Amino acid sequence: MKALGRHVLAEYFGCEKELLNDPKALENHLIEAAKAANATVISSSFRTFEPFGVSGVVIVAESHLAIHTWPEYGFAAVDFFTCGDSSNPWKAHEYLKTVLKPSKTEEKEVLRGVLDIENLSFKPFLIEQQKRENNSAAFV
Amino acid sequence: MKALGRHVLAEYFGCEKELLNDPKALENHLIEAAKAANATVISSSFRTFEPFGVSGVVIVAESHLAIHTWPEYGFAAVDFFTCGDSSNPWKAHEYLKTVLKPSKTEEKEVLRGVLDIENLSFKPFLIEQQKRENNSAAFV
Repeated sequence: MKALGRHVLAEYFGCEKELLNDPKALENHLIEAAKAANATVISSSFRTFEPFGVSGVVIVAESHLAIHTWPEYGFAAVDFFTCGDSSNPWKAHEYLKTVLKPSKTEEKEVLRGVLDIENLSFKPFLIEQQKRENNSAAFV
Repeated sequence: MKALGRHVLAEYFGCEKELLNDPKALENHLIEAAKAANATVISSSFRTFEPFGVSGVVIVAESHLAIHTWPEYGFAAVDFFTCGDSSNPWKAHEYLKTVLKPSKTEEKEVLRGVLDIENLSFKPFLIEQQKRENNSAAFV
């Protein structure tokens, strides 16, 4: 039995309130967090609520990262979901903690896609990798 | 102690493979699932992988729904994350099951944003509601 992916659900308490209400800064931070996890960023979408609060999702080739913030409580709920062996959602969490500076976090990891299949593979990533390898080969 | 939101993580096994590779159909189904949960759809973004697989996220005012599919395994990992008392992520799950027709599902609920604050409120939804009430009043 092997899992297709790992999903880290993290609660960030005691963050700086202004940062939690800045969609552009949060988007940049979440994209950098995805890179820290060695994930490939495909697209991102962030929205600000009135009078405060931001929701944003970064779709990566390996699944997604998401954040929802409540600046009034200094709180953010963050998801780091990556598939395949090459990306590590915990690295994204470690990175994001350095920039959001929560006074406390709580996290749990949930395995996704636990299937009883031999040689279970996360194909999109492998295909992307093959493409890069093919492209590299073309430039030799 | 009260939670800002509920996050249902669901594993769909034994789904029809063609449907899991159809981004437009999946987007429509996830949007309908959001409505079934009484959530307010804000935006959606879906992507197809080569040679197969779809990733998609629907941002709702109450948080987000997400799906990642592996048609080759008949498998989908689905997230239903809603905040506030007016939306119910389990209703989205119940709806999606009727259209993806998995032979088996596994699900767990994780409470998000459990804060020791009196009168904890999910403000964006209340504000949207107030706006609608104000708009309605303007037409009286």
